[in-house]
Amino acid sequence: MTDVSFPIDDRNQVKRLSKRAHYGRATLYPILDAAMLCHIAYVIDGQPFCTPTAFWREDDTLYWHGSSASRMLRNTGDGVPVCLTVTHMDGLVMARSGFNHSINYRSVMAFGSAQRIDDPAHKRRAMDAFVERFFPGRNALLREPTVQEVKGTAILAMEIEQASAKVRAAPPGDDEDDFALPVWAGVIPLRTVVGARQDCPRLPAGVTPMADVTRYETGRVVDEVFLQTHRLNDGG
Amino acid sequence: MTDVSFPIDDRNQVKRLSKRAHYGRATLYPILDAAMLCHIAYVIDGQPFCTPTAFWREDDTLYWHGSSASRMLRNTGDGVPVCLTVTHMDGLVMARSGFNHSINYRSVMAFGSAQRIDDPAHKRRAMDAFVERFFPGRNALLREPTVQEVKGTAILAMEIEQASAKVRAAPPGDDEDDFALPVWAGVIPLRTVVGARQDCPRLPAGVTPMADVTRYETGRVVDEVFLQTHRLNDGG
Repeated sequence: MTDVSFPIDDRNQVKRLSKRAHYGRATLYPILDAAMLCHIAYVIDGQPFCTPTAFWREDDTLYWHGSSASRMLRNTGDGVPVCLTVTHMDGLVMARSGFNHSINYRSVMAFGSAQRIDDPAHKRRAMDAFVERFFPGRNALLREPTVQEVKGTAILAMEIEQASAKVRAAPPGDDEDDFALPVWAGVIPLRTVVGARQDCPRLPAGVTPMADVTRYETGRVVDEVFLQTHRLNDGG
Repeated sequence: MTDVSFPIDDRNQVKRLSKRAHYGRATLYPILDAAMLCHIAYVIDGQPFCTPTAFWREDDTLYWHGSSASRMLRNTGDGVPVCLTVTHMDGLVMARSGFNHSINYRSVMAFGSAQRIDDPAHKRRAMDAFVERFFPGRNALLREPTVQEVKGTAILAMEIEQASAKVRAAPPGDDEDDFALPVWAGVIPLRTVVGARQDCPRLPAGVTPMADVTRYETGRVVDEVFLQTHRLNDGG
């Protein structure tokens, strides 16, 4: 294990197929930064919930947002434990036995406590950072948020206490005796790509998109755009 | 509310933006059946975990699998509560204010208790069903699972007790006064597509893929293939 950035214990240790496990920022962060969507697990009265939401990372802190009214935010804003997971599905791995079928993927589970950001100035900075993280240059083009909008938005922050990544990126791992079988085996790759932009039906004549939008060029793999925009914000 | 297939209470009622909420099988099931990947939330000693895994649906039951050794399966096989969530991210919704930026998506949260399938014959049927659900016709081409493989695989089943879907599929919902602003607004669509098939490096000469594989044609939207293969199994 060459790179361990966070303590490993029972909570974040990968139990199954530990050869696929990683614990270092150098592996964890590009997986997080190539995504906009995460799933967050939290508990209310013993009942687990798994909520999808948009998130972003700054250093060792993960941020996500939503209306102040949402169940998740009412219940995860006061230092309660959460697990934030990001998964990229990269391919279907077709083997010679059912047992050896698999998926190529990159995933991160990050553990910590969600804290609500209540200070309006801090919250406003985070709202701007959210837009800018995915669409660098866009804040300058938008109207200012209203006081009511800042009030109606809840932003949560979680410092990563522990995390682990699991990655599979390989051809089928068949049993030695199976390789000769006369059945096709290999990988069916998957990728999430940008489609053709759709103008708002009420777009005024003559308004054209700037780099914040055109960077999401038709056909580009969106993971790569998300990684690029993260790095633009990170000074990279 | 025209179609409510499962009881609605505090656990599954959509609290935020309830106009996007659905509670009927006619909406819920195509969202589930267009996916292979889900995220499952479960609790161990008060700590929530969010684990990505492959799953499939038969009637009102969801199935997923993994090694008997995994943490999730050791802890969710005895009737413990879980929340299984599926999310498709369909587009980035670019508005004239930061506040009105959004995502077009389809998501389902399903609640129930995970039960481990222990009977070897039942487990074997479920393992075959898993391959067949995504790759109709493939089981007939594979070698039989060994006794050891059946033993080493854990299959979990969850009857859906409650569920809800949330769907957004619309252009930006800007404030009336903002539509005239000179900034590009609209939707950047996203879709997950099949890439060019990669032969296993050890594929014997002359072995070509059959319909179970070629159905995943390069460029196809994978959601649509998953929905199609579900329906082939469902007799549709």
